[in-house]
Amino acid sequence: MFEAKLANAALLKKIVEAIKDLVTDAPFDCSESAMCLQAMDSSHVALVSLKLEVGMFDTYRCDRTINLGLSLANMSKALKCANNDDTCMIKYEENDGDSITFTFADVKRDKTQDVTVKMMDIDSEHLGIPDQSYSVVCEMPASEFQKTCKDLATFSDSLNITATKAGIVFTGKGDIGTSVVTYSPSSNSDDESESVSLEVKRSSQPTALSDRVRLSLCNEVPVVVEYPIEDNGYLRFYLAPKIDDEENMD
Amino acid sequence: MFEAKLANAALLKKIVEAIKDLVTDAPFDCSESAMCLQAMDSSHVALVSLKLEVGMFDTYRCDRTINLGLSLANMSKALKCANNDDTCMIKYEENDGDSITFTFADVKRDKTQDVTVKMMDIDSEHLGIPDQSYSVVCEMPASEFQKTCKDLATFSDSLNITATKAGIVFTGKGDIGTSVVTYSPSSNSDDESESVSLEVKRSSQPTALSDRVRLSLCNEVPVVVEYPIEDNGYLRFYLAPKIDDEENMD
Amino acid sequence: MFEAKLANAALLKKIVEAIKDLVTDAPFDCSESAMCLQAMDSSHVALVSLKLEVGMFDTYRCDRTINLGLSLANMSKALKCANNDDTCMIKYEENDGDSITFTFADVKRDKTQDVTVKMMDIDSEHLGIPDQSYSVVCEMPASEFQKTCKDLATFSDSLNITATKAGIVFTGKGDIGTSVVTYSPSSNSDDESESVSLEVKRSSQPTALSDRVRLSLCNEVPVVVEYPIEDNGYLRFYLAPKIDDEENMD
Repeated sequence: MFEAKLANAALLKKIVEAIKDLVTDAPFDCSESAMCLQAMDSSHVALVSLKLEVGMFDTYRCDRTINLGLSLANMSKALKCANNDDTCMIKYEENDGDSITFTFADVKRDKTQDVTVKMMDIDSEHLGIPDQSYSVVCEMPASEFQKTCKDLATFSDSLNITATKAGIVFTGKGDIGTSVVTYSPSSNSDDESESVSLEVKRSSQPTALSDRVRLSLCNEVPVVVEYPIEDNGYLRFYLAPKIDDEENMD
Repeated sequence: MFEAKLANAALLKKIVEAIKDLVTDAPFDCSESAMCLQAMDSSHVALVSLKLEVGMFDTYRCDRTINLGLSLANMSKALKCANNDDTCMIKYEENDGDSITFTFADVKRDKTQDVTVKMMDIDSEHLGIPDQSYSVVCEMPASEFQKTCKDLATFSDSLNITATKAGIVFTGKGDIGTSVVTYSPSSNSDDESESVSLEVKRSSQPTALSDRVRLSLCNEVPVVVEYPIEDNGYLRFYLAPKIDDEENMD
Repeated sequence: MFEAKLANAALLKKIVEAIKDLVTDAPFDCSESAMCLQAMDSSHVALVSLKLEVGMFDTYRCDRTINLGLSLANMSKALKCANNDDTCMIKYEENDGDSITFTFADVKRDKTQDVTVKMMDIDSEHLGIPDQSYSVVCEMPASEFQKTCKDLATFSDSLNITATKAGIVFTGKGDIGTSVVTYSPSSNSDDESESVSLEVKRSSQPTALSDRVRLSLCNEVPVVVEYPIEDNGYLRFYLAPKIDDEENMD
């Protein structure tokens, strides 16, 4: 049996909205200590890694380590039924067959909503992510990062991130023109490190999961885009560098 | 001659928006006492019944009982021209040929707008709706009913309503999962009556016609979804039960 | 070299949004005294005439008269990157080849964005617009004019404007009906002049360039729809009258 209760459904709704365009089927690994998810997008360029620790839940019971496979499209439909301030209980019982029940409760109105979603068999490939030291770690407002990615996507389907002592620079170059966004270091004091240049094929667009985003950069290894979730979890995107023959950095 | 003036155009705009996806052509029956409309949707599952009594109008003159046929799509286009706080005069004169004029006036700005819409010949089939006693009458916030119908439509194109002493329960069951919404009786004290189960094929989605909606339920007869309009009228949807062979209640 | 700086990018964004559906390619004529644009729509019914005088810019440098051709679609993409309160620098250097750079700076966040857009060869046909005395000049709130044009477009693809001592009247007549909007003179005291009747094929829809719009009308010559831009420029639409054989005014 697995049973975990979140104080409000909005958090899970935002997480699912943030990843459902990248990953279609999600294997949730539930253990005594956390609910985790690792999945790659279909083009194997982006790896999503989600961790929700026990401390994030109001109640949490996991009798044995279990893998719950869900279509994120269906999970999104279920979560859209919830009001943002509803509580959200996630429940799986072996006897219930292959389905998971989300229960949304709005105490004030004496209303509960049970949404039962069929599970899927998904091969869970929990990849070992090697420890990596990064040349640059940059924190910035999540909204700024999101707007910059959206603006550059107008011009190019890949973007280049360069961090120097002068700041962090995002560049998108395409047929109709070029856009270069520069954040100068006075507001990003962590960036004063060596130069780094890499290209990410696409970037993630979570909306309001957290106020801040942390970018970890190093040449020729995946960039990490991390959104901390309260104090007990994170949503990370590992984005592989794009290797162009003509622009190869070797 | 028919001439009737509403204090603001927003009311008529909301009514037309609420029914125009269900009914395309509307025969308005105008008499000394009220402006009425009865029409079935094309699949003959839903009957719309609208009554606007004289008391709802600022001025009202109807020389003789008359039937005014209008395309609701055209009527919607006309009403979208009105600002919500404009007054709305509806006028038909035998001499004007086959058209109706809506006049919207915004006194402050010294602006008037006359929209003349061509009439249609529509067979008016004013059905006698038999008196029916219902096992359950349930009042609830219109917004809750609307959200519940929208949520369940994600999972199923039919929904099941069950009322017991424990509350009123809406169920939608489909391929991707099942959603069950329960309102417990503490907030719906009228529901403490015998069990009722029926299925409605689709439900109506008026937005802000009224704060409350009244559901009248009885096995094997159409459910009535009623929105009171101020104190002088109503918009009712009669929705036929869906008879499945496998789930037949007989 | 051409270099001009606007205190905020919102102004240029609004101008481009207002004209980009009418005109695809824009030749900006830059001189010592102003940045101008004249272009006709593809059907040669509407002439757009834009003038931004030096006084509108924070800084302005134009070494020699020059014509900068830009796709308005690309210019719109560039300007959408700007936040409304960003400053906007427009820069062209002969040495940079055929491109223009827009620099948006948000001083608070120490962020700058350079968007470089390729230029186009556009035949600039700066038409001499003859002086014309108009029978009627009518000023009205831009929002009212915009709503009236939008409402009438529901019914007809041409509209008729008639101004008399009784007011200014906009009429759209189509298959589904007719809409007549009347503004009475008490709020438009300038309109008390002789009768004028003409038809304009389409009208412009700038949103919030200015609070007021000025219409200049005379039989059988183009109507002028003018939006003043601050105190140092204007956006004008010259709209040719539509000559119908059956409704010819001769």
